[in-house]
Amino acid sequence: MDDQRRSAGGATHAAPTGARSVYFVSDGTGITAETLGNALLANFPTQVFRRHTVPFVDTVEGARTLVAEIDRAAANGPGPVVFTTVKAPPVREELTRARAALIDLLGGHLVELEGALGTTASEQLGRYHGVGDLEQYFARMRAVEYAIEHDDGQSHRALELADVVIIAPSRCGKTPTTMYLALQYGLLVANYPLTEDDFPTDGLPRAVAPYAERCFGLTTTPLRLSQVRHERRPSSEYASLAQCRLELRRAEDLYRRTRVPFLNSSTKSVEEMSAVILQSMKLRD
Amino acid sequence: MDDQRRSAGGATHAAPTGARSVYFVSDGTGITAETLGNALLANFPTQVFRRHTVPFVDTVEGARTLVAEIDRAAANGPGPVVFTTVKAPPVREELTRARAALIDLLGGHLVELEGALGTTASEQLGRYHGVGDLEQYFARMRAVEYAIEHDDGQSHRALELADVVIIAPSRCGKTPTTMYLALQYGLLVANYPLTEDDFPTDGLPRAVAPYAERCFGLTTTPLRLSQVRHERRPSSEYASLAQCRLELRRAEDLYRRTRVPFLNSSTKSVEEMSAVILQSMKLRD
Repeated sequence: MDDQRRSAGGATHAAPTGARSVYFVSDGTGITAETLGNALLANFPTQVFRRHTVPFVDTVEGARTLVAEIDRAAANGPGPVVFTTVKAPPVREELTRARAALIDLLGGHLVELEGALGTTASEQLGRYHGVGDLEQYFARMRAVEYAIEHDDGQSHRALELADVVIIAPSRCGKTPTTMYLALQYGLLVANYPLTEDDFPTDGLPRAVAPYAERCFGLTTTPLRLSQVRHERRPSSEYASLAQCRLELRRAEDLYRRTRVPFLNSSTKSVEEMSAVILQSMKLRD
Repeated sequence: MDDQRRSAGGATHAAPTGARSVYFVSDGTGITAETLGNALLANFPTQVFRRHTVPFVDTVEGARTLVAEIDRAAANGPGPVVFTTVKAPPVREELTRARAALIDLLGGHLVELEGALGTTASEQLGRYHGVGDLEQYFARMRAVEYAIEHDDGQSHRALELADVVIIAPSRCGKTPTTMYLALQYGLLVANYPLTEDDFPTDGLPRAVAPYAERCFGLTTTPLRLSQVRHERRPSSEYASLAQCRLELRRAEDLYRRTRVPFLNSSTKSVEEMSAVILQSMKLRD
């Protein structure tokens, strides 16, 4: 297909240096290939990779164009690595022609699964990441809209419908975690800030007290909170280490007194916090 | 460890019927195991599965408890299938004791990758789904807050900072797509509704016209839009097929006239739309 380039990138090429090109190739969005590929690459922390995500490779022609690109990278650097979740055999076959190590993240496991189930995979190959039915889409859309409406205690409307109410001092990670739970799981999630005004009383803030059993608290370290707050309001009292320490101590006392489960967000990603909340609130089996 | 249960679930058990238990087992959030496992299961559309996601299995004790649960499922139904992304060898080893087909989604590929890179994997096994550094967390948080502020044309503040401005008639999927791009990629995304008022003129709505090259349009099918709008306002003029057809035709005419790239959201998931937008706007390499 492209002989000139092929020979230009032949085996006599000088020892390659620099970053190794890595391709995440998918017939869908590329998210799975990217996630699993990165999980594998993380085991080689001293290597330098140049990452490329290539979604929607679902034709032989598309694969051929990509193979030409990979071969150019092979000619100019260390041998590329290709992670793929492409399902159609002719497209996969085309990808094997690239001058690269091909790691097929699905193919081999499909054979294992056929063995476990004692049956062969359906010819119409499975789609995933699909909306599925309209109902699921509605649930997701409703959840995102609910999250926007109830961000930072802005609204108390229909708070009784919330699957989870996340409570925490300002800047502990309430908003991104809320949005992730809504988008990824279609859950109705409200969040409510714990401010100075909420601490004189003994219990939970009045607005969320009726839903105590659905509350989940966040905390963090004073240093981390101070860093995050400095980002928003540099050198303010609000961002001072003393103020952060005070608010976090009060919040943690409140969680303990009211038996609200909580977690420290300082070393956790949004995905990890969401998974802990789901498990702790028994929102998935 | 649990001999009584083990023998109760022995090989003499009557031919199992009903749903087959499937476990997605991870030492992290379980998202990768779930996504890839479901992609594989989608190839067996006639089978019935009972799915369980088990995150944070990172100790031998945790694995042992889970193995007991899997063995109970094995005693009461068709042979379970376990998809795992657990990395620590002793924990993986423990999982192999379960009376189930174990599909190790990472282990084999790690060996392939070692071959491709000509080196061995680091002993401190890679973490993924991590926040990484504070900067990345800030970017994500900022992006979600920006998306909330700019949802549905609510604010024009700092619109010049937007990486993407999604435009579409009401209920075409702007909000969830916006939020996904913000959360997943840390992009600044605004969205702007195309209403009746926006069509008399020749070009884009005045608020977004200065950012024409960053606009991306959504459309859908009249039937789908009508279904989605009925959900919000049943039997309204707004939800009528005629009104939906009219608004979508006008929107598509506008996209073509102003050379705004657009896509039809009717058969696409939020993830797929986001991937198309990223690619089309060249927001990832």
